[in-house]
Amino acid sequence: MSGLGDERYQTFDPLQNIENKTLFISATTAELEEAVALADAAFPIYCELSDAQRASFLRAIGEEILNIGNDLIDIYCKETGLDRVRAIGERDRTLYQLQLFAKMIETENWRNNITEAALPARTPKPKPSLTKTHIPIGPIAVFGASNFPLAYSTAGGDTASALAVGCPVIVKSHPMHSGCGAVVATAIIRAAQKTAMPNGVFSNLNAKSYELSHDLVKHPKIKAVGFTGSFSGGSALQKTVFNREEPIPFFAEMGSINPIAILPQALEKDAEKIADKIGNSIAIGAGQFCTQPGLLITIDGEHTDHFIKELTKVLEGLGQQCMIHPELKKNYVRQSEKINRLEKTVEILASKDQWDNQFVKPKLSIISGEQFMANPQFQEEVFGPFSLLVKCKDLKEIEQLVLHLKGQLTGAIFAPATDFEYIHPLIQAFKSKVGRLLLNDVPTGVEVTTAMTHGGPYPAASDSRFTAVGPASIYRWLRPITYQNWPNELLKKIIN
Amino acid sequence: MSGLGDERYQTFDPLQNIENKTLFISATTAELEEAVALADAAFPIYCELSDAQRASFLRAIGEEILNIGNDLIDIYCKETGLDRVRAIGERDRTLYQLQLFAKMIETENWRNNITEAALPARTPKPKPSLTKTHIPIGPIAVFGASNFPLAYSTAGGDTASALAVGCPVIVKSHPMHSGCGAVVATAIIRAAQKTAMPNGVFSNLNAKSYELSHDLVKHPKIKAVGFTGSFSGGSALQKTVFNREEPIPFFAEMGSINPIAILPQALEKDAEKIADKIGNSIAIGAGQFCTQPGLLITIDGEHTDHFIKELTKVLEGLGQQCMIHPELKKNYVRQSEKINRLEKTVEILASKDQWDNQFVKPKLSIISGEQFMANPQFQEEVFGPFSLLVKCKDLKEIEQLVLHLKGQLTGAIFAPATDFEYIHPLIQAFKSKVGRLLLNDVPTGVEVTTAMTHGGPYPAASDSRFTAVGPASIYRWLRPITYQNWPNELLKKIIN
Repeated sequence: MSGLGDERYQTFDPLQNIENKTLFISATTAELEEAVALADAAFPIYCELSDAQRASFLRAIGEEILNIGNDLIDIYCKETGLDRVRAIGERDRTLYQLQLFAKMIETENWRNNITEAALPARTPKPKPSLTKTHIPIGPIAVFGASNFPLAYSTAGGDTASALAVGCPVIVKSHPMHSGCGAVVATAIIRAAQKTAMPNGVFSNLNAKSYELSHDLVKHPKIKAVGFTGSFSGGSALQKTVFNREEPIPFFAEMGSINPIAILPQALEKDAEKIADKIGNSIAIGAGQFCTQPGLLITIDGEHTDHFIKELTKVLEGLGQQCMIHPELKKNYVRQSEKINRLEKTVEILASKDQWDNQFVKPKLSIISGEQFMANPQFQEEVFGPFSLLVKCKDLKEIEQLVLHLKGQLTGAIFAPATDFEYIHPLIQAFKSKVGRLLLNDVPTGVEVTTAMTHGGPYPAASDSRFTAVGPASIYRWLRPITYQNWPNELLKKIIN
Repeated sequence: MSGLGDERYQTFDPLQNIENKTLFISATTAELEEAVALADAAFPIYCELSDAQRASFLRAIGEEILNIGNDLIDIYCKETGLDRVRAIGERDRTLYQLQLFAKMIETENWRNNITEAALPARTPKPKPSLTKTHIPIGPIAVFGASNFPLAYSTAGGDTASALAVGCPVIVKSHPMHSGCGAVVATAIIRAAQKTAMPNGVFSNLNAKSYELSHDLVKHPKIKAVGFTGSFSGGSALQKTVFNREEPIPFFAEMGSINPIAILPQALEKDAEKIADKIGNSIAIGAGQFCTQPGLLITIDGEHTDHFIKELTKVLEGLGQQCMIHPELKKNYVRQSEKINRLEKTVEILASKDQWDNQFVKPKLSIISGEQFMANPQFQEEVFGPFSLLVKCKDLKEIEQLVLHLKGQLTGAIFAPATDFEYIHPLIQAFKSKVGRLLLNDVPTGVEVTTAMTHGGPYPAASDSRFTAVGPASIYRWLRPITYQNWPNELLKKIIN
């Protein structure tokens, strides 16, 4: 933040198709070292504060973000091309998350404290008293998502969950929305000062190049990493983490193609409604969601043909949308064209992408189940409003196809809820592949709640045992500790 | 188990100081492949069984182990040199663990099922119903401990916890007690057959060399690894795991020196009692426990001098004990001599180790806090009845020393429980380093219970967020999954 570096960069206004004026300066190694040293020094102080103190910090962050007012919304829109309704909605979600974690640490047994009394008379050996609680693991590095500049970025889910439970946070700002990141970071630091948090509890590092990111995750004083982004970005960071002398928790949410199996029995009655629901889920926000359904699995036949016609209508009706950044558009066009170049793919909805702006239209392509399973490249994510529809021969082939998939954040089945015995093997297949399984519903719109799982088997997430969304996401940053043979009066003072 | 390999090896009877007669044949790559393929095929069947079915399997394992009768105790003793009381005690612990997991899956909400009802009237968007549960992650590879042939080996904590929640298990048998492993493996397979478990739910692989271990953990169908052993063994396996294409959970418990800070205020009243407690904890079972206290941190002065005299008496009184294996004895002598060769260490209790048998005597050495902190080699584990006593200048230096330590399974403080303000900074220092913190108690004797944490910051464990002992150890092998928009009638059928 102190601006000592040589590398300068600008963010991009995709609607205007021009660079934004503000110059950002990439942080130097010395600035990174300073941020980490401050976080490390802040940790023993910060983790000993009361839950009420940390909750007041989180609430103050929310207030300070709100205080930025329209400036934040303006910068958000100028750096993403997303509209004001979405910007305000995402800000609301960010504020809600901060509130949620604040409320949780104040009112719930989030440390899962358990006390077992001593049994001095037990034979052959007395049992000592044991109290188990959870404590924070240390300074966390956070890498936010390109597609959620607020809710999964600077003050997003990873930051809020880590700060809530006592871990200092260093955010590596996303270069596509460093302006948005900078004003939010300022709000967090102002909140920290107002609520008397230790210096260094939060830092924001700008950088366009990848080098600083790798330096950050390999720093011995960083004790865990939260990442939201692409498979290639997540994998590269993971490799660096795996080369550390001390292994640390690395949680990466790396996207997914979110398969939806659509059975003819569902289409028989509701083809139009289903096409509307799925079409909107495919193309909303120019398809720039990690839960965007990029794979529709059907059974060849008249119901599916009718569905394809309806879906095409819906997607055509949605028209063109602006993508967040030229880089994302370039990848979208390249990836969708790559899929379409793979043998015998039939383009049902093919948009001619213009290169002189950042707008794209939805695309839909079709292949057979056999073709899909023959080439793993069909499983690569196309980040944008593209979906690949697979026509399988029968339900058995759908099951095989699902079992053939890599790990996914979500999966969905459209089928009459009465046909349980019929779809049970399909449910089992999906269960082994996803972190969230939906029935007659679309995966976009991730509820921030206790019962949510946002994660899944690799490569959807780097560790399927955790969720990135909702209160349970704190357990990525906590470890258990057991106190043995301590009098209760002392325990009350130790467990804050 | 089918014995197709060329490599043969024998276990060792340390009391008799001769090799045991049984020849074991290392498994071949083909046998490993077969075991993994069977486990992979068993998984979708096994994980769908009811909790009652898996509980009956665990109970049957216990019965079959008990049915081996004295033969098991004989083999145990012949392969470890440990006495029958210990053998029977460890068998009891193993049976208790199997019972505990069986009872837990039958009677507790171990899947942490949470259901949130739909809120169709919520604005701006209805909330769908969400149900979160936990499911097993797949076949697990288990590497048991040299020092617990029963409780942390073939049918030990890792195996029991994984089988309990629906994960097939492949055990790589410990070459120091492959006989014990073989009869227990036979008991498990007999139990699997009696309770109609799918073929391949459990396999046992013999191998003397390390190669098979690495082949096992890099196999794409192995979905997690549980390891108990040395830092070097755990680190080597972790490196292989980190080179997999698909990252998987790797939990290694790699031992620790379990520091105990002994304040003069405690010694003033109770030096004899404390010396007795700590001396026995140092040398029990020839010091071959992962929670053995290898580091005693004191403040230089008359109380500590008196304590050293008392402790020396206790340790001398314990006499010689047989170590489990020549390899362990060799390491013990080498490591303890290495520590003693480091500058200015004072040997208080130096035993002349004989090379013609496996017996050793307790050792105690002394250095200053400054010396300790100047050389990280003083932190290396000496697996056996050795302890290093550090004389610090004052409490402040003890705190610095603790902060200077690597991660530990346990830490302990001996101090009057009334001196809270005085020891609070020391508690904070220990908290940051250990998985379990004791007051006026010794770390050996790990309770198998909900409030236990057996793990800790690296290198005590590879991931401090989990415990290897107690019911919570199942969360190493489980992942969350959320069902969205499913009618309750179907959910009841899906969540078994």
